[in-house]
Amino acid sequence: MIPFLDLQEQFDKYVETNVFNNQPSELYAPVNYILSLGGKRLRPILLLMAYNLFEEKVENALPAAMAIEVFHNFSLIHDDIMDEAELRRGQQAVHKKFNTNDAILSGDVMLIYAYKYLSQIKETQYLPEIYNAFNDNAIKVCEGQQMDVNFETRDDVSISEYIKMIEYKTSVLIGVAMQIAALAANQHKIAAQHLYDFGRNMGIAFQIQDDILDAFGDPEKVGKKIGGDIIQNKKTFLYLKTLEKANQEDVTTLTIWFSKKQENESAKVKAVKALFDKYDIKKMALAMMNEYKERAFHCLDQLEINSAKKEYIKKFSLNLVEREY
Amino acid sequence: MIPFLDLQEQFDKYVETNVFNNQPSELYAPVNYILSLGGKRLRPILLLMAYNLFEEKVENALPAAMAIEVFHNFSLIHDDIMDEAELRRGQQAVHKKFNTNDAILSGDVMLIYAYKYLSQIKETQYLPEIYNAFNDNAIKVCEGQQMDVNFETRDDVSISEYIKMIEYKTSVLIGVAMQIAALAANQHKIAAQHLYDFGRNMGIAFQIQDDILDAFGDPEKVGKKIGGDIIQNKKTFLYLKTLEKANQEDVTTLTIWFSKKQENESAKVKAVKALFDKYDIKKMALAMMNEYKERAFHCLDQLEINSAKKEYIKKFSLNLVEREY
Repeated sequence: MIPFLDLQEQFDKYVETNVFNNQPSELYAPVNYILSLGGKRLRPILLLMAYNLFEEKVENALPAAMAIEVFHNFSLIHDDIMDEAELRRGQQAVHKKFNTNDAILSGDVMLIYAYKYLSQIKETQYLPEIYNAFNDNAIKVCEGQQMDVNFETRDDVSISEYIKMIEYKTSVLIGVAMQIAALAANQHKIAAQHLYDFGRNMGIAFQIQDDILDAFGDPEKVGKKIGGDIIQNKKTFLYLKTLEKANQEDVTTLTIWFSKKQENESAKVKAVKALFDKYDIKKMALAMMNEYKERAFHCLDQLEINSAKKEYIKKFSLNLVEREY
Repeated sequence: MIPFLDLQEQFDKYVETNVFNNQPSELYAPVNYILSLGGKRLRPILLLMAYNLFEEKVENALPAAMAIEVFHNFSLIHDDIMDEAELRRGQQAVHKKFNTNDAILSGDVMLIYAYKYLSQIKETQYLPEIYNAFNDNAIKVCEGQQMDVNFETRDDVSISEYIKMIEYKTSVLIGVAMQIAALAANQHKIAAQHLYDFGRNMGIAFQIQDDILDAFGDPEKVGKKIGGDIIQNKKTFLYLKTLEKANQEDVTTLTIWFSKKQENESAKVKAVKALFDKYDIKKMALAMMNEYKERAFHCLDQLEINSAKKEYIKKFSLNLVEREY
């Protein structure tokens, strides 16, 4: 297997050589801006790693990796408008650095470029299948974002609805990245499906981990302020699980804290985290995360490839989900 | 050739049977709303007509026609946000009927569905070529919209830049609709290119006609108030041509009228139209429209198909560009 850092370097170089120099420059400046902010580039790296399970010539899969990264960044730009987010990756969000109209139109052109990059995948017989998989999951990403918007004003969100929302909004894109890798490597559709299910389940584990880190992480390691989800009244796994487990009094307390924007943010974070602790929610969240990780590994185990390769992908994924809390 | 009205009926029925019943309903309500507003459906009809040049079974091309119509409506939704438009087809614009966030996200999902419909085209060997043609022209639509935005704050727009802007923003989609029709009918790429060029040139003629109708049309026939472009300081062909032809004094007068939003709209429309008349601008615009119509017909003449079929498409197009002024 090609080491992770080499894949990352190859992908970063590909992004650099594919900078958008087209006209009008006003349309492409926001595209170059958000792509220059970097980020973890988890999706393209996992795609290249999955391709490398079957093929050595990973440069063939670079356009596919770019398609997924460009789509992911399109969705971040539009989500940040909807969420009125100020920051993205520690820098100004696109609609703040430029303006909302620029952010809408540049996001649109990125979505089209995602398809254009897909069309550049070399040496695959499964291009129509790749397009179909991408279409179906891109639609789910929009549906997941709509569910998330709907949850803001609903007070009856169940945990299973929450899992479905994060599955659609964030996990299926990881799934389809790995599925496309297999199809690009001309692998039988069953292998592509196993990789899809691996990515989808692992993506859910990643998101539950994000929920945990937001409340219980080490600010220095996480790289941001702790308690952001609590301050923003986000209905995360931790919040929903507490509502499920707590007595009536604590449910009322939690609901009041989450009923509006609170002046004293640190008091709110402290009080809410005390409730999480009282009901041992972190442990339950870790157990849930672990369950999805195990499901993901089970899907990977179905693949008929040499086990050393599978272990490499597992190890890489574990590094991502076994941080210190 | 299948009569125009039959094609329209088939397409309208296809739209009705393809109503979006998916969940979450909040995501799809704006999609169904804008598609229910109808409009001329010029692009899908021209696509079906072009397909019918080669094939009788036009139902095979209905998904392609739907793809173009869904894409066109996606672009209207997002453009209406950017232009702060109140109305679309005489009804509330999507971002007014719902809200801006809904309009962004529902537009996004429509763009993806355009690709999904393309993937449903039956009995074609040219699906990758169809995707490529669609990608390249969808990108141009975004670039054209950005040019239009840039023109708002520029005072040095040339007529050739204006033609390029309308070509990208509106005409290439008509071109690619007809190109896709040929590819869907398994026609050699040269035929597809001739049809693309026909649609692209005819689209420019349609847009110049729109500019003329906006200033000189009969309000009852056009179905809207006259002078909308003038009131909104739109740099149309008429405006740019007047700047080119007028003496210094009249250029200054026109520039002042267009420098801000004027209180007395009818006085402005009257004064600006007087300048158009003084320099015989309507005649020049009609000549330019005619030139693009002739170019379009020349492209159609290159097609190696029976001339009665070509005449049918010409007649249909002429009905669209030879209104009374």
